[in-house]
Amino acid sequence: MGTEIETERLTLEEIRDLAHRTLAAHGADEANAAAVAANMVAAQRDGSQSHGLFRLPKHVTSLRNGKANGRAKPVVEALSPSILRVDGDRGYAPLAQQTGLPALEAAAKEHGLAALTIRRTIHFAALWPETEWLAERGLVAFAVTSSPPYVAQYGGRRPVFGTNPLSFAWPRPGGLPMVYDMASAAMARGEIMVHMRDGHSVPEGTGVDAEGRMTTDPAAILKGGAQLPFGGHKGSAIALMVDLLAGPLLGEVSSLECGDEDNGDGSAGLGGEFVLAMDPARFGAGDAVARGERLFARLMEDEGARLPGDRRHRARARAEAEGGVDVPKVLLDEIRALA
Amino acid sequence: MGTEIETERLTLEEIRDLAHRTLAAHGADEANAAAVAANMVAAQRDGSQSHGLFRLPKHVTSLRNGKANGRAKPVVEALSPSILRVDGDRGYAPLAQQTGLPALEAAAKEHGLAALTIRRTIHFAALWPETEWLAERGLVAFAVTSSPPYVAQYGGRRPVFGTNPLSFAWPRPGGLPMVYDMASAAMARGEIMVHMRDGHSVPEGTGVDAEGRMTTDPAAILKGGAQLPFGGHKGSAIALMVDLLAGPLLGEVSSLECGDEDNGDGSAGLGGEFVLAMDPARFGAGDAVARGERLFARLMEDEGARLPGDRRHRARARAEAEGGVDVPKVLLDEIRALA
Repeated sequence: MGTEIETERLTLEEIRDLAHRTLAAHGADEANAAAVAANMVAAQRDGSQSHGLFRLPKHVTSLRNGKANGRAKPVVEALSPSILRVDGDRGYAPLAQQTGLPALEAAAKEHGLAALTIRRTIHFAALWPETEWLAERGLVAFAVTSSPPYVAQYGGRRPVFGTNPLSFAWPRPGGLPMVYDMASAAMARGEIMVHMRDGHSVPEGTGVDAEGRMTTDPAAILKGGAQLPFGGHKGSAIALMVDLLAGPLLGEVSSLECGDEDNGDGSAGLGGEFVLAMDPARFGAGDAVARGERLFARLMEDEGARLPGDRRHRARARAEAEGGVDVPKVLLDEIRALA
Repeated sequence: MGTEIETERLTLEEIRDLAHRTLAAHGADEANAAAVAANMVAAQRDGSQSHGLFRLPKHVTSLRNGKANGRAKPVVEALSPSILRVDGDRGYAPLAQQTGLPALEAAAKEHGLAALTIRRTIHFAALWPETEWLAERGLVAFAVTSSPPYVAQYGGRRPVFGTNPLSFAWPRPGGLPMVYDMASAAMARGEIMVHMRDGHSVPEGTGVDAEGRMTTDPAAILKGGAQLPFGGHKGSAIALMVDLLAGPLLGEVSSLECGDEDNGDGSAGLGGEFVLAMDPARFGAGDAVARGERLFARLMEDEGARLPGDRRHRARARAEAEGGVDVPKVLLDEIRALA
């Protein structure tokens, strides 16, 4: 991976404290700072640097310029017995999610399936915390969100879709759920940012430059170019589904419309999230979870195979065993100057 | 594309009549034969040869050996107000779908979202007829089904997943919905069969041979090898979601378990299908469909871009304008000998 990055080992509590203090110093109230900090701790713990402290300087920008409401008071309402809506009050998504998820769990268990729509929030993080939370409570979960446009559609070369992640989780007895969370871009944007920061090139197929030519230079993709969807026209079709569910369906902006409101100051825009939860106990199988276990066991017989999301859960076990994670020194210096 | 295939022009009514007569000659009753024939007409009309008459000889095999119940009487029941289940009575899927879809439409419009699960059917066709039907009635629709294992998981090389298609449809005012239907395999199995029949090679990345080596020979993939998922580990994760939703969630077999029951006689096995429908009018947007139109219009500004599913709808327009489609002569000879 080329150059060695200087790092510092922090405990998860130190990460939480640093994130909380930094957000509070720039106007976030207790509830908002705690929710975002918890989300960042989870990302760092699970080895997802690009969703962790790495985003904190951007959050400070958004709090300072008023794009993010650090004192947001999200409210949940029922649009139907099985459709819930949270208005995020222009705050960061974690508090809106905390507000809506228990209601979604209850509705899914009562009706067998239910949807949660989250509007007017700034979504910056992974989706697996929501789907994993639901699957830990026995539910099958699906979540999508969009973002400003960074990704070209198949056959085009201008950015039209966000990285448009899709997360899916399936409950497992006596252990962590099967959970994955993947960008419909070939590479998550945060990962491309990390590659640029560290001076690494990205694989062919990650994106194109401003002239629409394939490039392995992360800077050319991020500045004026476009990312590419994974898997050609099929990944592009997944990105479109995500855009429609997280935007138009909820009365929220599409990725393109989110981009219209971006003034390029590096702060994030408002957008929507769609979460679906289903109770496998209500689908008539009687043994849905046991059937899932049978499938996982047989998939694992295949040499070299791993369940999706497994790498993240192994990073979590490592962080918990070691009592902390390594954070780049240069990032910590930047954050400590803000806190 | 190499060798020229000799074809014969048939009207859509002639295709319907041929399929109907052939099925009836081998024990299908009126309702079952009509439902399957209608499905085949739709596939041929939309340019999907691999889901059309091409499958008819296999159906005859399944009717003859009793794997398919040509006199199936599918029954729909409500597991909850918003979860419906159809028992397909071991028949072909189209009649089970006809039985369940109106109830799904009604439940989705009443509750905002609803799911239809279809069990104990032989699914052989595309999923877009279901999702398009729902979207023509103003609903957002999502459908998945699994099949005997043909596709390797990422990192593995034995077939573990069916081609596990996913279909998504979004309603559009005054025209056909946006509808796509894609295998989570890099190439639909029926397409590989058509390539083999026509003596064509398939692109790199379509599959591996019995030793796990990449190959462009369709026969090596179909006989002892494995197809590959589209888009590497991400497509593999989509295939797993499809397998879980269409199998374990419903109390149906996974792709691997479906394969256990395959005795290699070329007839299809029983399996499940999961269909989700959502009423955009119930998600609080007020203008969800109009927002979708805004997105589509902007996507089409991008030179070279087309909406997913567009090729199929153009094939339909052509078939309707020309009053028929071209069917390979060798296939017609085979079917006429059966009818």
